[in-house]
Amino acid sequence: MRGTVREMIDRGTYRKLPLFEGELPPGSYAQIVEVKPGQRVGKHYHLHQYELFCIIGGEARLGIGEVEYVAKPGDVFLVKPKTVHWVVNGSDEPFRLFVVKLNYRGDDSVWLEE
Amino acid sequence: MRGTVREMIDRGTYRKLPLFEGELPPGSYAQIVEVKPGQRVGKHYHLHQYELFCIIGGEARLGIGEVEYVAKPGDVFLVKPKTVHWVVNGSDEPFRLFVVKLNYRGDDSVWLEE
Repeated sequence: MRGTVREMIDRGTYRKLPLFEGELPPGSYAQIVEVKPGQRVGKHYHLHQYELFCIIGGEARLGIGEVEYVAKPGDVFLVKPKTVHWVVNGSDEPFRLFVVKLNYRGDDSVWLEE
Repeated sequence: MRGTVREMIDRGTYRKLPLFEGELPPGSYAQIVEVKPGQRVGKHYHLHQYELFCIIGGEARLGIGEVEYVAKPGDVFLVKPKTVHWVVNGSDEPFRLFVVKLNYRGDDSVWLEE
């Protein structure tokens, strides 16, 4: 089945759209995240979950641990548990990524900044 | 960490590159697949694994079950176990997708055509 973008959940600086709810095996989760133009997602980490990112639109600075990347469409990233990560979208376009969470047990985010 | 494309494994009509080996939790697997210009990946299904596809380059016909989609960069798809799927790349560009396998226990492909 195709993941169709319907109404997204607004979280202030970003929006998110869960995909394939009820269709994935236990411990996994999929969503599209869109960081709004000129906005950021603050530094945070997860206690248990792994995150795979596949960039699908726009361009932004993506920080993972000690490194800040310039993330562009087609780039793929892994964020392991307890690794701090953040996004800075300094452009005037939305920054969109497909996110797959593994070892997912519900929200386990620890925020270091808003 | 960033998933960097190094040498790909050639499978005739397509090439694949495993990513983040040894870094993902048990039961999951990630790779980039590139279907060569003018080539196809024949009909097959998997016994146990789920596949999430995020298209990152090119355009192709992607069949899943009873439906054939025109798949383009940014599109996201889910293939559930025992669902037949295939790719026809009728273009003169490579068709590239990021693939995440869930409930993965090793190769469990059943091929209906080459």
